[in-house]
Amino acid sequence: MDQTLVLIQCRDAVGLVSRIAQVVAQYALNIVTMREYVDEATDRFFARIVCAGGVSSADEFTHELRQSLPEGAMVQVNPPALKKIAVLVTKESHCLADILVRYFFHTLGADVCCVVGNYEALKDFTERFQVPFHLVSHEGRSKDDFEKELHRVIHAYSPDYVVLAKFMRILSPVFVSHYRGRLVNIHHSFLPAFIGANPYRQAYTRGVKLIGATAHFVTDDLDEGPIIAQDIRQVDHTYTAEDMRKAGKEVEKAVLTKAISLIIEDRVFITGNKTIVFG
Amino acid sequence: MDQTLVLIQCRDAVGLVSRIAQVVAQYALNIVTMREYVDEATDRFFARIVCAGGVSSADEFTHELRQSLPEGAMVQVNPPALKKIAVLVTKESHCLADILVRYFFHTLGADVCCVVGNYEALKDFTERFQVPFHLVSHEGRSKDDFEKELHRVIHAYSPDYVVLAKFMRILSPVFVSHYRGRLVNIHHSFLPAFIGANPYRQAYTRGVKLIGATAHFVTDDLDEGPIIAQDIRQVDHTYTAEDMRKAGKEVEKAVLTKAISLIIEDRVFITGNKTIVFG
Amino acid sequence: MDQTLVLIQCRDAVGLVSRIAQVVAQYALNIVTMREYVDEATDRFFARIVCAGGVSSADEFTHELRQSLPEGAMVQVNPPALKKIAVLVTKESHCLADILVRYFFHTLGADVCCVVGNYEALKDFTERFQVPFHLVSHEGRSKDDFEKELHRVIHAYSPDYVVLAKFMRILSPVFVSHYRGRLVNIHHSFLPAFIGANPYRQAYTRGVKLIGATAHFVTDDLDEGPIIAQDIRQVDHTYTAEDMRKAGKEVEKAVLTKAISLIIEDRVFITGNKTIVFG
Amino acid sequence: MDQTLVLIQCRDAVGLVSRIAQVVAQYALNIVTMREYVDEATDRFFARIVCAGGVSSADEFTHELRQSLPEGAMVQVNPPALKKIAVLVTKESHCLADILVRYFFHTLGADVCCVVGNYEALKDFTERFQVPFHLVSHEGRSKDDFEKELHRVIHAYSPDYVVLAKFMRILSPVFVSHYRGRLVNIHHSFLPAFIGANPYRQAYTRGVKLIGATAHFVTDDLDEGPIIAQDIRQVDHTYTAEDMRKAGKEVEKAVLTKAISLIIEDRVFITGNKTIVFG
Repeated sequence: MDQTLVLIQCRDAVGLVSRIAQVVAQYALNIVTMREYVDEATDRFFARIVCAGGVSSADEFTHELRQSLPEGAMVQVNPPALKKIAVLVTKESHCLADILVRYFFHTLGADVCCVVGNYEALKDFTERFQVPFHLVSHEGRSKDDFEKELHRVIHAYSPDYVVLAKFMRILSPVFVSHYRGRLVNIHHSFLPAFIGANPYRQAYTRGVKLIGATAHFVTDDLDEGPIIAQDIRQVDHTYTAEDMRKAGKEVEKAVLTKAISLIIEDRVFITGNKTIVFG
Repeated sequence: MDQTLVLIQCRDAVGLVSRIAQVVAQYALNIVTMREYVDEATDRFFARIVCAGGVSSADEFTHELRQSLPEGAMVQVNPPALKKIAVLVTKESHCLADILVRYFFHTLGADVCCVVGNYEALKDFTERFQVPFHLVSHEGRSKDDFEKELHRVIHAYSPDYVVLAKFMRILSPVFVSHYRGRLVNIHHSFLPAFIGANPYRQAYTRGVKLIGATAHFVTDDLDEGPIIAQDIRQVDHTYTAEDMRKAGKEVEKAVLTKAISLIIEDRVFITGNKTIVFG
Repeated sequence: MDQTLVLIQCRDAVGLVSRIAQVVAQYALNIVTMREYVDEATDRFFARIVCAGGVSSADEFTHELRQSLPEGAMVQVNPPALKKIAVLVTKESHCLADILVRYFFHTLGADVCCVVGNYEALKDFTERFQVPFHLVSHEGRSKDDFEKELHRVIHAYSPDYVVLAKFMRILSPVFVSHYRGRLVNIHHSFLPAFIGANPYRQAYTRGVKLIGATAHFVTDDLDEGPIIAQDIRQVDHTYTAEDMRKAGKEVEKAVLTKAISLIIEDRVFITGNKTIVFG
Repeated sequence: MDQTLVLIQCRDAVGLVSRIAQVVAQYALNIVTMREYVDEATDRFFARIVCAGGVSSADEFTHELRQSLPEGAMVQVNPPALKKIAVLVTKESHCLADILVRYFFHTLGADVCCVVGNYEALKDFTERFQVPFHLVSHEGRSKDDFEKELHRVIHAYSPDYVVLAKFMRILSPVFVSHYRGRLVNIHHSFLPAFIGANPYRQAYTRGVKLIGATAHFVTDDLDEGPIIAQDIRQVDHTYTAEDMRKAGKEVEKAVLTKAISLIIEDRVFITGNKTIVFG
């Protein structure tokens, strides 16, 4: 059966749901599920609406919706269902492998257009899935130079999202600015604990009983962007720093996959430095 | 700030959200959160709407909403915020204690109007919280007689909900019929596993690695009513049947408290033999 | 640093730990971790001991340990570290993929010697990892005939364990007898709930709030063998039977991988119809 | 049946388990479970041994064990089964209530000898359980003076452990020194995240998806003592800072109760700034 997905962000105002629902009804669509949220801190309204039925002209429908909403409203009708994602990696395989396997068996819900690594470690694995792998080394060149080539390579694929799947280089604000709200990172700790390097060594030294991971959008402030998903695994005193790293990899993989899945189903909105997740 | 809570159940139809939102807008209310669900198996529509703003006449508003909906729609505007619950117990204290402590510190969100036990074991504890305790013994009398007195005692308090907090007598369909959709039980297993008696002995014998609990509405079929909440705890081979019972008590308590909290916040709807939980 | 792993099962008796520890000390080994358990129901003693230091003759050491223990004691010193596992599949990929990816990146801790499918669906994927795939179809032949070929194909690899990674044929007691204590299955529910076919349809119909999975050794009684690991994921009323199946796949994969990991690290003992897991 | 519990801490050396097991065997005791751990960072050996059978003289048995171990070994045979705990509170009730209810129903496994508050808020509740409540106000006096009275009041009961159940005053190193290794705190976050005040406000501002709590021994460094137990609850964008506080209270209560239970069963050892938990 035909479905129409509507995404809306705008300034909050009285009667928004009614206005939206009226336009939807005019188009003879039936609301199947509607999730909405008002962020009082920023006075913004967010909605994700699934309607039964199709529209002949998405443009016209979008226009009608926008007319009924406060100025500056962002309206998306039927955003591309099959997003393209570029994956950036270094040497660790666990997150990339999970993404590629799901892509291969059509359960990722997205196209992996390319994998870019600053080492060749994961080239062979990537190519087994007929996905192009590009080596962009950071060695022997300036950061600016490195990021320019990185951007050039990625840009050629016009991806909807760029996923840092254990990409171990810190990206500059200039690079980040190319993919604002579209750059996803998996951080190896339950943020904001253990910011910075060697989190498992830190966790081991501190004697924690839980190991976490955090998927977040990347902003100019390292490790400070909007959090999309977090989870933990239990550990105990018998875990070495290396055991914690292994437990950490399992949770990193699970959290990144969950975040990607939420994003490509258009369930995540950004408001200020937080996310709204219509899970 | 004033808030108006609206609960709706009706036959599904095109444009329901629009019709509801229009009535809401006519009353100058602003929708803060709206959750709705269409159960396709039964073709029913369910909604829970929180609006900013108050209404001068809830009756009139209810009437207007009902007018805009399919025949037979059930509409509730501002259901009583402070529900009254009667708690039925036998000898085990863990669930009752959690309920009474929350009641005492005003974090239950409901009034505990009475505790009824078929033994006196929990009388002293109950009365420490100034809650009336009634002994209704099942001994030396017919089941019919026992249940009649039980009903008489409970009925005098006109409770909104009756909670079986480890009440170890099986209730007849006649008794259940007095409290249809208002009778909540905590079952000592992850239903539908280990239906019946001695679930921890069964779990121990089977060598399970998880112990669960299930809160559900009671219907005529024992252990088969709509499930409200479930959870589990991990166990291992070192657990005796008694250790599993102890772990089970923790999860029973947590699950029952969660279910009560969802119910008294009007977040639970029943459809067929399932629940819709707008958590 | 050298390590010596000792596994012991025997009839329980007074002073077993002392006797074992004395032999260990005679060999100038230092106990790093020792886990032991007495199953009172069967009056059996189980121990897993990790020692710092090596032994020149494992046979002699084994003999000395056996001498110090009750008659019929089973003693294993340094069981093969790199187990060989054969994986049986039908059409579903999620469990196999997780196993093969870990094998490929040397994080499985075991060799996957072959994959055998009763359909060709997973042949291409398997061969991308240079693992041999064998098609043994059940179609157009007797069960006996089918299982004989299955056994012949598997037997040629002399695997330590056979893993049923969503293998959808019920195996006969004759087949099971070839791999007693070495045949691992992933069951698509939180056993003992939803025994039998279509568990997600059953779970959906029952309106459960949790979806589980169970890894267990296979015995003659279908779904009744010793449980190795179990876990759950939360679901809610918005999940269709298909959504529950998807959630179920995630938990099946995680539980099977955990069970395999425990087994190949020699952490699992079978006693009666239960497991002892020195996790 | 008689059981003998043995706790040991000492410098690590070759053959410790053998030496211990020999002494145990000399006393005709049978080891039921033995947990041991060597902390390589500090080169210390820790063991918790449950034996079937009793000893006529615990002193003699302790002496014999000590003789067989490296100099300076700490050996405890049958530590007092019913520990006494003093509970310090401010105004929040959730942790105290859980402790008192378990004490009342004999499921805490410890005696609550007294509750001390720096406000009177929890006096009435405490006294309903026949537990003495002492008000020691911090107002209008020096910190030194306040802590001296606190210590005097607590000391009169000679408690084995002092539990800070949401006690909102920072204690000085002098006070802490009276109860080294016996002073337990519940921290309102998943340490080391959100150190300091107003963690729920911090968590809300940061937009986290999990809320945690940490039970730890108190040392001179605030929030930096050895962690005993940690856990988390999931939250989402709809949670206000107040909702996060409510979720936090549930996890605080559960984590503190778990930590107390581990401690009074003599399952927790301190090594450096970490704990070993034989759970």
